[in-house]
Amino acid sequence: MPNFHAKVQVSLRTSVLDPAGEATKSAAAKLGIKGLTKLRIGKAIDIEIEASDIQEATAQLELLSDRLLANPVIEDWNLELSPANSLSIT
Amino acid sequence: MPNFHAKVQVSLRTSVLDPAGEATKSAAAKLGIKGLTKLRIGKAIDIEIEASDIQEATAQLELLSDRLLANPVIEDWNLELSPANSLSIT
Repeated sequence: MPNFHAKVQVSLRTSVLDPAGEATKSAAAKLGIKGLTKLRIGKAIDIEIEASDIQEATAQLELLSDRLLANPVIEDWNLELSPANSLSIT
Repeated sequence: MPNFHAKVQVSLRTSVLDPAGEATKSAAAKLGIKGLTKLRIGKAIDIEIEASDIQEATAQLELLSDRLLANPVIEDWNLELSPANSLSIT
C-alpha cells in the first residue's frame, strides 16, 4: 500500500488570545531580540500514513485533524499531504 | 523598516520518545483511522519581525529559536523566513 507523508499545522484562531506566545515575546525582548511584532505558538504534527490512494489518505487525515488534533472551537488546521517517496521520483 | 514573516518548526529529535504523539496515535486507531505509521507532535511558531535586512532578521530569529523556542537537548528547529510582502510582489 502506498505511503503518504503529511504535515498538519494547528493554529489558534486570530480572535483567540495566546498567553504562551505573549510570554515568549516578552522574554525575547528581555533577551535583547528587537522588532518582534507578532509571535503565536501553534502545533505541527508530522504524520506518515498508509492508504490505497491519496483521496483515502486525505479523508482519514481530515477526520483525524477535525476530531483529535485540533479543537475547532478555538483552532484552525491546515493539511499538507504528499507521497512519501516524492523526493525519489524526480 | 522592512517586515519579515517567519515560521519556526520545533520538533522532538527522532531519538526522543513522544508520549503525546503515541497517545494520539492510539486514540486515532480507536476512532477508526487506519494506516497511521507515524505521528509526532511538534510546535509551529508564527512570527513577524521588523529588521533592517534579511541577515539581521535571520540572526535575531536564530538566537530566539536556540534560546527560547527550542530545547536543544531534545529538540531540533527549522526556520523559514520571507519578506512579509512577498505575496504582493508577484
